[in-house]
Amino acid sequence: MSRPERKTRVAVLGSTGSIGTTALKVLRRHPDRFSVNALTAFANVDRLGRQVDEFRPPFIGLVEDRPGRPAEWHGGERCLVEAASRDDVDVVLNAVVGAAGLDATLAALERGKRVALANKESLVMAGELVLATAKKGGGEIVPVDSEHSAILQCIGSRDATEIRRVVITASGGPFRTSSAEEIRTATADKALRHPTWKMGRKITIDSATLANKALEVIEAHFLFGIPYDCIEVVVHPQSVVHSFVEFADGSVLAQLGVPSMELPILYALAHPERITDPEVPRFDPVAMSPLLFEPVRSADFPMLALGIGAGRQGGAAPAVYNAANERAVALFLDGKFTFGDIAPAVEHALDALSTAPGATRSDILNADASARRLVEDRFECSRS
Amino acid sequence: MSRPERKTRVAVLGSTGSIGTTALKVLRRHPDRFSVNALTAFANVDRLGRQVDEFRPPFIGLVEDRPGRPAEWHGGERCLVEAASRDDVDVVLNAVVGAAGLDATLAALERGKRVALANKESLVMAGELVLATAKKGGGEIVPVDSEHSAILQCIGSRDATEIRRVVITASGGPFRTSSAEEIRTATADKALRHPTWKMGRKITIDSATLANKALEVIEAHFLFGIPYDCIEVVVHPQSVVHSFVEFADGSVLAQLGVPSMELPILYALAHPERITDPEVPRFDPVAMSPLLFEPVRSADFPMLALGIGAGRQGGAAPAVYNAANERAVALFLDGKFTFGDIAPAVEHALDALSTAPGATRSDILNADASARRLVEDRFECSRS
Repeated sequence: MSRPERKTRVAVLGSTGSIGTTALKVLRRHPDRFSVNALTAFANVDRLGRQVDEFRPPFIGLVEDRPGRPAEWHGGERCLVEAASRDDVDVVLNAVVGAAGLDATLAALERGKRVALANKESLVMAGELVLATAKKGGGEIVPVDSEHSAILQCIGSRDATEIRRVVITASGGPFRTSSAEEIRTATADKALRHPTWKMGRKITIDSATLANKALEVIEAHFLFGIPYDCIEVVVHPQSVVHSFVEFADGSVLAQLGVPSMELPILYALAHPERITDPEVPRFDPVAMSPLLFEPVRSADFPMLALGIGAGRQGGAAPAVYNAANERAVALFLDGKFTFGDIAPAVEHALDALSTAPGATRSDILNADASARRLVEDRFECSRS
Repeated sequence: MSRPERKTRVAVLGSTGSIGTTALKVLRRHPDRFSVNALTAFANVDRLGRQVDEFRPPFIGLVEDRPGRPAEWHGGERCLVEAASRDDVDVVLNAVVGAAGLDATLAALERGKRVALANKESLVMAGELVLATAKKGGGEIVPVDSEHSAILQCIGSRDATEIRRVVITASGGPFRTSSAEEIRTATADKALRHPTWKMGRKITIDSATLANKALEVIEAHFLFGIPYDCIEVVVHPQSVVHSFVEFADGSVLAQLGVPSMELPILYALAHPERITDPEVPRFDPVAMSPLLFEPVRSADFPMLALGIGAGRQGGAAPAVYNAANERAVALFLDGKFTFGDIAPAVEHALDALSTAPGATRSDILNADASARRLVEDRFECSRS
């Protein structure tokens, strides 16, 4: 494949988080291929300052204004859309956590840019809107999630009509082998001990409840146009096989790698090219043996079926599921919810908002706000 | 992908063997896509007769003339080249066992046809010649071996320069966990009990010695232009992962399926299209779990390193290795060699013929004949 004529100019949104710092590690190794033209962080002034010193991006943003912010940094939530909209940015790596990432995704797609999407909430909340925006603006979404990167790599240049089924792997999280009672009463401390992936706190809890896998099923549905009936989830504790794709002739391809986000990030930035990188951790089948696959314990992890159900329902339901889950997880991390409180709170919000409209951005943001409020109210009620 | 305008016309060489009968099973399911225009068998008049009754091919060949052959059947070894050369044949499925398949491969490639190659000896004996013939005649080789089909599927439309490494899986055969002494003294009866694949007798013994894997390494070298240093073998007892391809960016793709030749045959006939076939046995990761990967016990299975060494040496060495092995396996199946006699006999032939030329078809056939004679002589000597 021929080398592009100039460097790809990247904006990293959420640069001080887990995905953001890994992205900069990858970008640091390929200065001849990429330039970092924008960095934004939520609130970590010190880390962002060190990143700015190293990469010297023309645009720097801090979402939550904090003491010590240099005057030339852009403050407030709007810095995300500003970074994503810049003319000197080709690829927006959106690693913002949660619903706050949606507008930046839309802004980049409107302007015909590539979004390297780690913020799966963009697609979960507003899949139809995001796809329509990409189509209209000429932008494209390339997934950063290891599972969706795997699916994209397995599909290669094949037509979607040749795909029969996608099997997304789930590590099973820290409670894969726990009893139903242990799961219900689990503390945040235990839930944060993920067996294979080192990630942020919110996504680690989502991995423990399997909500993360539901979000990924919805994301896969929108990214690849695959019907929900053709997406399955299988537990794979080693997190080495990142997903399977089954084709019309019965053949199955899988993408494998050690659990590291370096490869999916590099792939999302370079796709469809593969950039030579000997430092990406190397896969050795013997070292990874044995590879186990188990069915999901659906009854003990109700967040999976709830989320897939919301996806099938469509409209505002996925946004409600996502927002209710975000709020419930925050309450759990604050010690205010037990692990077993999360799913009923989300189910309650889904039931209460089952007729909420979800066609426009404001519909979705309304549904998002209502869902958060319902979860909050439920907590307040349970306290009184 | 658009449907081709007319049926693909197939010649099946070796139609009564294991691959041949599986190929006809697949072809029977897709009469709208394929027609069977030639069938040849070695000596099984009855089975060939039944196949002829069903498929009514315009050309029928029998290599070893036997009583009961109908007058309109073509007799003698030349029937293979005749079938492979016909104007009404687009794809030659070459499932002939052993060195006898070479001329048919060359004849088909010379005439610009596709060879769906199960006869790996064609490439092992005469890789350079076969590739040069394909290039000159405009023919192409698509592998039928499950491992090479897997590699081809993983590579997809990517450039060979993006491939860093290929890992070919080996079941390990019936002696994977046997002691060195048990292996050395194994009988044909034990060696024929392959744990995962149901195949012909010769290839089953080659799987037990790992000679088959050496032939596959050489085949992969020629098919995909991959240096020997970039081809590895790993033992995978379940025979579910058919091979791995590692790319320049560190990503690994694998192709998986239950051990059945139906898929690689269908893929070789239809490539690059995938034909919908719900009857190809379906892969279920949970049912196949756990997947194990082990290093090869190279010291106990010397045929692997001997064969790869012959591949690296090039020239006539792979043909010598292949021919000496064919003769040694025949002596083993006749009860005249022990399992432990095979590798030393092949090594002796390789040493004795280390300077044999291998540039032309006649060089190769001479080396083949000399190697067989050397193994035969060794047996006669050991008897006297």
